[in-house]
Amino acid sequence: MTRFALTVEYDGRPFMGWQRQAHGPTVQQAIEEAITAVTGECVSVHAAGRTDAGVHGIAMRAHADIAKAITPFRLMEALNAKMRVVPVAIIACETVADDWHARFSCVGRSYVYHIANRRAPLTWERGLAWRISHPLDGDAMHDAAQRLVGRHDFTTFRSVHCQSASPVKTLDRLDVVRTGDRIAIHAAARSFLHHQVRSMVGCLALVGTGKWSAQDMARALEAKDRAALGLNAPPDGLYFVSAVYP
Amino acid sequence: MTRFALTVEYDGRPFMGWQRQAHGPTVQQAIEEAITAVTGECVSVHAAGRTDAGVHGIAMRAHADIAKAITPFRLMEALNAKMRVVPVAIIACETVADDWHARFSCVGRSYVYHIANRRAPLTWERGLAWRISHPLDGDAMHDAAQRLVGRHDFTTFRSVHCQSASPVKTLDRLDVVRTGDRIAIHAAARSFLHHQVRSMVGCLALVGTGKWSAQDMARALEAKDRAALGLNAPPDGLYFVSAVYP
Repeated sequence: MTRFALTVEYDGRPFMGWQRQAHGPTVQQAIEEAITAVTGECVSVHAAGRTDAGVHGIAMRAHADIAKAITPFRLMEALNAKMRVVPVAIIACETVADDWHARFSCVGRSYVYHIANRRAPLTWERGLAWRISHPLDGDAMHDAAQRLVGRHDFTTFRSVHCQSASPVKTLDRLDVVRTGDRIAIHAAARSFLHHQVRSMVGCLALVGTGKWSAQDMARALEAKDRAALGLNAPPDGLYFVSAVYP
Repeated sequence: MTRFALTVEYDGRPFMGWQRQAHGPTVQQAIEEAITAVTGECVSVHAAGRTDAGVHGIAMRAHADIAKAITPFRLMEALNAKMRVVPVAIIACETVADDWHARFSCVGRSYVYHIANRRAPLTWERGLAWRISHPLDGDAMHDAAQRLVGRHDFTTFRSVHCQSASPVKTLDRLDVVRTGDRIAIHAAARSFLHHQVRSMVGCLALVGTGKWSAQDMARALEAKDRAALGLNAPPDGLYFVSAVYP
């Protein structure tokens, strides 16, 4: 049995998220079915993060244990051939130690959230960014974002369905960068609560339009209450960027 | 009657190109039908260029004459509302003089062609770039491209369906720029022949893989013969970037 680490790019639009669901296609299912088609083995694929429906992956990391003798390169090529009809691609593949775990060995995760700040509807980027018509103040968003960086109880920014043992997390980075009519929000932490990035981005959008001040953001955090959340951003603009291992 | 100049962004994937066709949806038809829905008028929309099926528009320029009293901003908003179900967006709108013509007044056109130089299939960019698995030498492509810059008979790089009066065109710019695994080819000229950019890009791809030298590119140009063409690139990666007016 060999453990293979996969780096996966995917378009989240047609999927009900990463994790297998009883009803509806998922990224995990697409990869597991491709592995079965290539190896004849029924395997479980474990990922660094379980993205929601409509969320995309730039370089999600995952692993699977495979008995068949196959090189990482051949496995990658075969999986991509099997997945030709779905927007999922294995962009890197390597063998790892048996105790390497895509989720439990991961010590850092990063996301980017893309906002298109313009009046016109999106065309080829539909579902790939959050369009906000109202002009956003990127500098004010960045300043307010710094109130969230550090170790905090993020209960306000946590989905009611979150399964994390604790609402306390350390947010290492939350940078807001404007380039023309594009705003990219870069978030990094050891781990995130369910909906944490989208909840933070939603509130940053309120800051960008002037409805919220940086002080309002700080108050929302201090409230430790989901009811204090201003807005949850749609999944469209969210991308899992990378996972860090020791 | 007021002449409105429109700047149009569109995803070419679902369309049979810009120009109206008897069978199948086109960008021109989508805009004309939206104008009719907004104004009750049957109008013709004229564009700076008529892109092929699957080719995209970043800022295509077009014009239409409208009798209804409406501001450019209101017209833009109304057209975008009507076109919500198609990937076409009016990103700018202004009134122009009656003798301003999107096609005949245009003195410069530019395109960009995007290549994704990687083994893995594309996910969210499927249909938005040309994936080439074989490693491409961007510098060699740029050098060969310079053989095409200037005033030449581009018969080799011209579709048999081209309606241009002359195959002689002046190519002002053909730059190949690599950024990571992306190659962008920037082309600018007063006007282009039908399929000229795709034909030039196809031959540049042959140079990139080492099948062709810069000398082969020069020979293909000198042949003035469509049969000397190495390869016509697919529409996927081609974007009409901008039109220049005096």
